[in-house]
Amino acid sequence: MGREIGIGLMGLGVIGGQVARVLEEKAAELAQRVGAPLVLRRVKVLPVDLERAQAKKMPRGLFTTDDDEFFNTPGIDIVVELIGGEFPATDYIRRALKSRRHVVTANKEVIAKHGAELRALAYEHGVGLEYEASVGGGIPLIAPFKHDLIANRIHGIFAIINGTTNYILTQMAKKDVDFAAALRRAQELGYAEANPENDIEGIDACYKLAILASLAFQTVVEPKDIYREGISRLNRRDFRYARELGFAIKLLAIAKESDGAVEARIHPVFIREESLLAKVDGVYNAVLVDGDLVGRVVFIGEGAGAKPTSSAVVADIISSARKISLGIGSISTWKPVNGRRIKPIDEIVTRYYIRITAADRPGVLAQIARIFGDNMISIASAIQPESDEKARTAEIVIMTHPARESAMRKALGELGRLEVVKGIANCIRIEDIEEG
Amino acid sequence: MGREIGIGLMGLGVIGGQVARVLEEKAAELAQRVGAPLVLRRVKVLPVDLERAQAKKMPRGLFTTDDDEFFNTPGIDIVVELIGGEFPATDYIRRALKSRRHVVTANKEVIAKHGAELRALAYEHGVGLEYEASVGGGIPLIAPFKHDLIANRIHGIFAIINGTTNYILTQMAKKDVDFAAALRRAQELGYAEANPENDIEGIDACYKLAILASLAFQTVVEPKDIYREGISRLNRRDFRYARELGFAIKLLAIAKESDGAVEARIHPVFIREESLLAKVDGVYNAVLVDGDLVGRVVFIGEGAGAKPTSSAVVADIISSARKISLGIGSISTWKPVNGRRIKPIDEIVTRYYIRITAADRPGVLAQIARIFGDNMISIASAIQPESDEKARTAEIVIMTHPARESAMRKALGELGRLEVVKGIANCIRIEDIEEG
Repeated sequence: MGREIGIGLMGLGVIGGQVARVLEEKAAELAQRVGAPLVLRRVKVLPVDLERAQAKKMPRGLFTTDDDEFFNTPGIDIVVELIGGEFPATDYIRRALKSRRHVVTANKEVIAKHGAELRALAYEHGVGLEYEASVGGGIPLIAPFKHDLIANRIHGIFAIINGTTNYILTQMAKKDVDFAAALRRAQELGYAEANPENDIEGIDACYKLAILASLAFQTVVEPKDIYREGISRLNRRDFRYARELGFAIKLLAIAKESDGAVEARIHPVFIREESLLAKVDGVYNAVLVDGDLVGRVVFIGEGAGAKPTSSAVVADIISSARKISLGIGSISTWKPVNGRRIKPIDEIVTRYYIRITAADRPGVLAQIARIFGDNMISIASAIQPESDEKARTAEIVIMTHPARESAMRKALGELGRLEVVKGIANCIRIEDIEEG
Repeated sequence: MGREIGIGLMGLGVIGGQVARVLEEKAAELAQRVGAPLVLRRVKVLPVDLERAQAKKMPRGLFTTDDDEFFNTPGIDIVVELIGGEFPATDYIRRALKSRRHVVTANKEVIAKHGAELRALAYEHGVGLEYEASVGGGIPLIAPFKHDLIANRIHGIFAIINGTTNYILTQMAKKDVDFAAALRRAQELGYAEANPENDIEGIDACYKLAILASLAFQTVVEPKDIYREGISRLNRRDFRYARELGFAIKLLAIAKESDGAVEARIHPVFIREESLLAKVDGVYNAVLVDGDLVGRVVFIGEGAGAKPTSSAVVADIISSARKISLGIGSISTWKPVNGRRIKPIDEIVTRYYIRITAADRPGVLAQIARIFGDNMISIASAIQPESDEKARTAEIVIMTHPARESAMRKALGELGRLEVVKGIANCIRIEDIEEG
């Protein structure tokens, strides 16, 4: 056995508590796997954390609420940041790296926004920065890009990386309920927060996609570079038409190579119901990676929760501890090799589903079709599944061939000004991922 | 840039040729990722390999057909073994390790049969032995057990790890064809070999399961420890009943913890049609891992083929090269910690589907049911879907509650001796993997 490896833990919330529990309960196995014992030396907490069950099982002397006291604790080799949120977590990580501690974090917001700076800081100080838990809970998603798939040129990533929204969409699809009802159910079950914005507007997914895309394309993709649409505009009618047309609706995080640039976007999509991602339901996450050698690989699992996340955090602790045992620092050779252009959403080309409420009278479809034609958008199919006799309106559902987003936006603007069009109920992109 | 890392390649078949191509075409990116150039110093070939297109594009002086000449080539840091088969590959790997070369191999048979010895040899000589490509082509399956999931106690592995058989079963299920016809189609497409035994009898899957189970349970599981049944006895009628009962039929490789021992077995199973593995069709592979922290994670991808396999081989080369650059040898801390008992098939407990051809007359089901009852096997359902009036036989399909295999075998023996039973057409285990 080598010398003890000291750990400083920041945060004793749901995830921090679980990590502390694993470090204690599995101490013997973990020591065997590292080749040295792991010792928890200090835990930085908020006063409120001290009331938690896990805290009460731990020696009082381990805890401190003071930053300096934490960072001045002797014998901390690895700082494990599980506080969450951008600040003060970012500053804590900076401080840890500058004091030559290896850092393990589950903080997607910090890595998405400050990853490039922090990686450089880690490299400069000869220590590691590990963040496997920041995306997809315990599903290996960071390691594959750093190691397993590294011989590949990555063509694209297509990911269901927010369990809350996937749960809501699954409810809407299978139970034929409204968005509001599905969200309420998710809140009752604890899958969605009281203020659900972070999930349903795709902000959480955006952080995760920024992290994956930066690794996959070896460039810096920040959250602000990513086009984002949430799921709150989806209606049960969209699900009904999707089903009838052979599609599922998912919130997909997409990053792909496109004419030498990178597309990075999060929005609801129609995907063919027989594709694998269409079958990933409930709170499960799934990430499809398309590489030039490996072809398509898919990683599926629970993307959140204390236990799955602790699986990734503890794996990162073990990997950092092994490096310390071997006397090597940051073995990451990751650097952004190319400042690749991120394609603005206007430039993307995709197929579209459009649901329009229009006057129920002859000639309406012709007017609508002309606008698409004028904008060089080919219609693949147009159906008028339903009319509301009292309101004298009809619903028209149009599927297009591939078209440029800018053209589509222009067409939608013109459609909205047609006297016969009562409203553009929805416009959803269609993503063709899998052939088989 | 660090000093050149020298590579010696053994074998220039389909996979060896593809690896040589990647090393050449991606030389610049790979060098950047390693931090040092990778240089192919020697290629050990058979005379026949020299006629291949890839060989003709390479400098003649690289090749040798002589073992000693290959191993005496100066400056080889990494030996990449892509010959396949047990011998002479095993001896080549031994020789490479003993001469302190890191070894990368895609050879499942060698690792399954000699993994423990070779790992010890690598450790003793301070070098690495990497074999990610031995299971599941480019799908990361070895690394997750060594790193990403290492904090987990693994409860079980449920895997579709042979593309040929999965293709055949998919054909039988979707096209309602016989085994023979589906096999012929697989042979025409090049998915199955002229002599298909290795695939259809589960031998290939057995090697792969031995490798995964050894890692997951940190013990030595050898191919001979694994119970194995192939797919050639499956009939289109089994698929029809499976479909009617809500199941799919897959050839699953299963390894799981069971009363402190390990169950390791490969055989056709009924799995619920809504489970994720049931939806993995064609030549795709899928490995579900169930861990105490991570829950269920699933890895899916193409499990074979030159390109996917080269993705894993080159990733292993890069990882070995990085270690060499850093001056560290084998950082694997893997050792079998426990010689765990492998449960004989007689002791397993599972549910069963049994298809019996019996005389078509009253009282037959009662006789059959009594034998199950006498052997303490509870019947969950019994149906007589079909009778052949001319032959005066009826088909009886029985689904049982969980029962011990030894009891089932005894019951089947007794059933076979009943005058009214014309034959036990099939007996297939039912595996309940996923709840959701």
